Amino acid sequence: MRTAVELDSRDPLAHYRDRFIGSESDLVYLDGNSLGRPLRATGERLKTFVEDEWATRLIRGWDERWMDLGAAVGDDIGSICLGAAPGQTIVGDSTTVLLYKAMRAAVALRPGRTEIVLDRDNFPTDRYLAEGVARECGLTLRWIEVDTAAGVTLEQVEQTVGANTALLIGSHVAYRSAWIADGAEITAAAHDAGALVLWDLSHSVGSVPLALDDWDVDLAVGCSYKYLNGGPGAPAFIYVANRLHDQITQPIQGWLGNADPFAMGPDYHPAPGVRRMISGTPPVIGMLGVQDMLEILREVGMEAVRAKSMLLTDYAIELAGEVLADQGVTVATPREADRRGGHVTLLHPAMREVTAALWSRDVLPDYRDPGGLRIGLSPLSTSFEEVARGIEAIGAALLEC
Amino acid sequence: MRTAVELDSRDPLAHYRDRFIGSESDLVYLDGNSLGRPLRATGERLKTFVEDEWATRLIRGWDERWMDLGAAVGDDIGSICLGAAPGQTIVGDSTTVLLYKAMRAAVALRPGRTEIVLDRDNFPTDRYLAEGVARECGLTLRWIEVDTAAGVTLEQVEQTVGANTALLIGSHVAYRSAWIADGAEITAAAHDAGALVLWDLSHSVGSVPLALDDWDVDLAVGCSYKYLNGGPGAPAFIYVANRLHDQITQPIQGWLGNADPFAMGPDYHPAPGVRRMISGTPPVIGMLGVQDMLEILREVGMEAVRAKSMLLTDYAIELAGEVLADQGVTVATPREADRRGGHVTLLHPAMREVTAALWSRDVLPDYRDPGGLRIGLSPLSTSFEEVARGIEAIGAALLEC
Repeated sequence: MRTAVELDSRDPLAHYRDRFIGSESDLVYLDGNSLGRPLRATGERLKTFVEDEWATRLIRGWDERWMDLGAAVGDDIGSICLGAAPGQTIVGDSTTVLLYKAMRAAVALRPGRTEIVLDRDNFPTDRYLAEGVARECGLTLRWIEVDTAAGVTLEQVEQTVGANTALLIGSHVAYRSAWIADGAEITAAAHDAGALVLWDLSHSVGSVPLALDDWDVDLAVGCSYKYLNGGPGAPAFIYVANRLHDQITQPIQGWLGNADPFAMGPDYHPAPGVRRMISGTPPVIGMLGVQDMLEILREVGMEAVRAKSMLLTDYAIELAGEVLADQGVTVATPREADRRGGHVTLLHPAMREVTAALWSRDVLPDYRDPGGLRIGLSPLSTSFEEVARGIEAIGAALLEC
Repeated sequence: MRTAVELDSRDPLAHYRDRFIGSESDLVYLDGNSLGRPLRATGERLKTFVEDEWATRLIRGWDERWMDLGAAVGDDIGSICLGAAPGQTIVGDSTTVLLYKAMRAAVALRPGRTEIVLDRDNFPTDRYLAEGVARECGLTLRWIEVDTAAGVTLEQVEQTVGANTALLIGSHVAYRSAWIADGAEITAAAHDAGALVLWDLSHSVGSVPLALDDWDVDLAVGCSYKYLNGGPGAPAFIYVANRLHDQITQPIQGWLGNADPFAMGPDYHPAPGVRRMISGTPPVIGMLGVQDMLEILREVGMEAVRAKSMLLTDYAIELAGEVLADQGVTVATPREADRRGGHVTLLHPAMREVTAALWSRDVLPDYRDPGGLRIGLSPLSTSFEEVARGIEAIGAALLEC
C-alpha cells in the first residue's frame, strides 16, 4: 500500500499547503468541504482593506471599485471555476437567497407548467426553498428518490422530467454521498422536455471543474466558503446564461438590481445582464476573502486541483477499507473517482459520537445524519499525511465509542 | 456666531473622534450617513478573527459562537440603539432582502386587505420592493405625497391608512430631508386601522434613539454600514415584535430559519422566535465590523450621541445660512433639531458638479437628485471644525461651478 509520505512527496501541489494558516500545526482538518481553511494572505487582506481602502476612499470607493466588485469576483469565479464566459456570474446574498431568486425566476419563465423536480437527498435549504416556492406559486414538487450512496442519474431525470416540469433542481456534487451528477446530459434531458435547470454548485466549485456554458446550463448558484475559502458566511454567487438575461426577472426588486441605482427614480427597471439578479448593496467586506483562493486556483488550474482531489479521495477510501472496514465502517461515496467530488462519507451507527470525540482532539471531520462521517479533502490545503492521521484517529475513536 | 474651535473644545465626546482612522488627516468626511468611517479597532478585529478564530476553531466555530452571532449582534443593536428587548432583532442578509421578507410577512398576516401604504419619497429600494410585493401578492400601492423638505406626517397617515391597509411602510429618518417621522404616533394610528407597520431605520440607527418596544412597532429593518460603521455592504438587521413570532412567516425558507438546522430533516418547520426570518448561513465576517461601533455606542449612550448630533446639524444649518445663502443655497432639512436626523441636505442646481469638485479635494459629502448635497454628520467621528471646513469648501466650489 502507498504511504502518505510517498504520496505527499510526489504531489506537485504539496507546497501550496503552506499558504494556509494552521498547516504547520498538528490539527487534522477534514472539513474543507464545509468551511475552507483561511489563507495566510486573507487576514492581512481584510486589515489592509479597512485601513487603506475603506478608510481613505470612503464613499468614493463605491464609484471606484466596490459597486462592481460582485460582478468582478463573479467573472473570476466563472472563468476559473465554472467554465462561464464573463457577464453571467455575480456575487451577492447568501446561497439560500440566491437559490430562492433563481427558483422564482425559473418558474416565471415557464408559465403554465406545474411541477418542480428535485431529489429527496438534495441539500435541505434547496428542498425547503422549493417547498416554499412551489406553495406560493401554486406548483407541486416531484421527488426523485436516490440511493444514499449515489445521487441523481440521467435515467431518473429522463423518467421524471416531462411536459409539466417548469424546473429541475439538482446538486452537481451531492452533499452527503459526493456523487457527481452528469451536468451535461441531465441539462440536455431537461431541456428536451422544455424545462429549465438550476444547479447547486456549493459542493463542486473550486473542487470539480465545471463547464456551465458548454453544458448549456440555465441557472446555477454556489457557495464561496467551502472550496473557495471565503470565510464563514461569505456571500454566494449566481450564474444566469446570457440567453436568459433579457427575459429573466426575480421578485426581490432592490435598488442595486435597478438599471441606474443612483438615479433613484420612481420605478424599477431591471438592470441589463446578470446584475438584475442582485437586490441590495454589494457585501464588499464579505467577498474579500474569496479573492485569495481564486488567485491560487487561477495559478494552479482546476484540472490539476481535480487530479489531486481524486488522489486524496482514492487514498481515503483505500485506507478506510484497510483500517476501518473491520470495525463495520462502510463507504457511502462512489468507488469510481470520476463519479465523486472532493469528500468521502463513511457510515457507522456511532459516527455522531466519533465526530464529537475527534473534535476534542483537533481532528475535524463533520457529521451528517444518518450515521455519516464526512471527510472533506480540500485539495490545496490537505496533505495525504493528514488523511492517514485522520483515518487512524477515526479507528481509535470507534474503539471507544 | 459660535466658532468651530469653541464648539469642539466644549464637546464632551470630542475625544472619541480619535478612535476612527483618518481623523488625523485633512480629509473632511461629510458622509457618515452613507458609509461610516472605520474605527481603528476594526482592521485588527478582522485580521484577528481570521488568524485566531476561523483558522483555529474552523468548523467548530459554528457550534461555539458563529451560528448565534446574528442573534447576539442583533440583541446588542436592539438594546443599545432600538429600545428593543432581547430576542427580537437578528442580523443577516442585506437591508433589501430583509425588507422584502418583512413586507411579504406583513402582507401574509393581513389576508383580505388590499393595500400597502408608503410615501413617494421613501428610499428607492423600499419603493421598488413594495412595487414588486404588491404585484406578486395582488395588492395595490397607495402613495403619500411628501414635501421634499419634510416627510410623512401623522395627519397624512391618518388620512391614508384605513380598513384596506395591510401594511404601512415608513422611513423613520427620511434619506433626503432627514425628517424624523413620529414613530409612536404613526404606529398607533396604523394599528388603530388594523394595519401593520414596517419602519426602515437605515438613517436612524446609531444616530437617533429609537424605542421600538415602547412604540409597539411590528417590524423594522435597518442598515449597519451607515451610523453603525460595519463597513461597505455589511449585513442588515430585522426586528420583529415578540407578539408576532408565533404567527409570522416569510417566503425564503432556508436551512438556518428551520427549527433544527442540523437535523436536515425532510420538512421545513420555522424556528421559534425571530430566527425564522433568517434564511442562509450567518454572514459572520460581514458582521464583525459593526461590533466595534456598538461597543462605543454602549459606552456613550444614544442620548449623548443624539445631543451631539443635534449640535452638529444645528451648526451646519447655521453656517450654511451665513456662508451659502447668498449663493442661492437653501436647506431642505427641518429647522427644528428634534424633527431632523443626523444629516442636512442643501439644495442648489449646481450641487452635482459641486459634489464632484469637492470629492477631488478630499471633501466628501454626497449628492442625491434633484440638486441635493447631503452632509452626513456621524456624531462620534465628526468635529465641528470638519463641518466648518466643509461648508467653506462648498462655498468655494459653488463659485467655480
